[in-house]
Amino acid sequence: MKKFEEKTIHSEAIFTGKVISLKVDDVMLPNGEKSKREIVNHPGAVAVIAVTTDNRLVVVEQYRKALERSMIEIPAGKLEPGELPEATAARELEEETGYGCNELTYLQTFATSPGFADEVIHLFVARGLYKVDSRAPLDEDEFVELMEITVEEGEQLIAEQKIYDAKTAFAVLWLKMQAV
Amino acid sequence: MKKFEEKTIHSEAIFTGKVISLKVDDVMLPNGEKSKREIVNHPGAVAVIAVTTDNRLVVVEQYRKALERSMIEIPAGKLEPGELPEATAARELEEETGYGCNELTYLQTFATSPGFADEVIHLFVARGLYKVDSRAPLDEDEFVELMEITVEEGEQLIAEQKIYDAKTAFAVLWLKMQAV
Repeated sequence: MKKFEEKTIHSEAIFTGKVISLKVDDVMLPNGEKSKREIVNHPGAVAVIAVTTDNRLVVVEQYRKALERSMIEIPAGKLEPGELPEATAARELEEETGYGCNELTYLQTFATSPGFADEVIHLFVARGLYKVDSRAPLDEDEFVELMEITVEEGEQLIAEQKIYDAKTAFAVLWLKMQAV
Repeated sequence: MKKFEEKTIHSEAIFTGKVISLKVDDVMLPNGEKSKREIVNHPGAVAVIAVTTDNRLVVVEQYRKALERSMIEIPAGKLEPGELPEATAARELEEETGYGCNELTYLQTFATSPGFADEVIHLFVARGLYKVDSRAPLDEDEFVELMEITVEEGEQLIAEQKIYDAKTAFAVLWLKMQAV
């Protein structure tokens, strides 16, 4: 998958933060012209479509500073260095929802913002959920509220723009598809 | 939707580019503690689920420097200042695919990376496609190749990770759902 490849002529590091970093690449286009690409590097993330026995989707409401609002999303979190995506998925599910799961299946991976970022999300499906007695704590700067919603409630929350992110919109549609 | 609001104490502008900008906000968490948020600002974008009369999805292959690979995606593009999303959608569809459309319907909006970016994508469905004789030119740094795929081909391309972005994964699932 290298069609129309853009060769890097020069790469300038702009910022290195605790979550993301930013660089500006000078590139050579397929026609020999030059252009600039502003690129955010991100460690990657997992997200979990956690389905209860009565076919509800487990979601959490949390504040998203980037959008200056709270959003209802499926559990998700950044990959830690050296951690397998499966382990991140199980950990984030437990931290954010208090659920362990007997079944964790890899579904697919997608890039979230290929125009400017390398972030990918590895999507998992969790079933066989059970409440963990002494759940792992949230990150110290993380505040979430748990909800369990039907497909119909999910569609209503999308219509009201309370579900307002790509991975959760995908999850609602995926769960609807399972019932067909 | 202000639950768990994080108040901005200080905001530091780090970078202003031609597509994105970056800032770091010091915030006050709901428990009174402080934290930092690294935030990318983006003008927002549209994406178009363009469906042919024989129920194929119109996609384009293009190189994505952030991921150092080409990807097969539904037509999409950034909002221009003052441009209505509907107009951006019609323009990007024509520029990237050479198709005009008789029907353009708003579907929904989603944030792509709420953890670190404010980018939202307004998703449209285009039907009644027709080839435009003198199509609008692509941006000068844009190179794309057109394909029209069935739902089954879309699922195969997802399995092969040639379709590898959230909006296009959503589009394939959405088109599959229409056939049910």
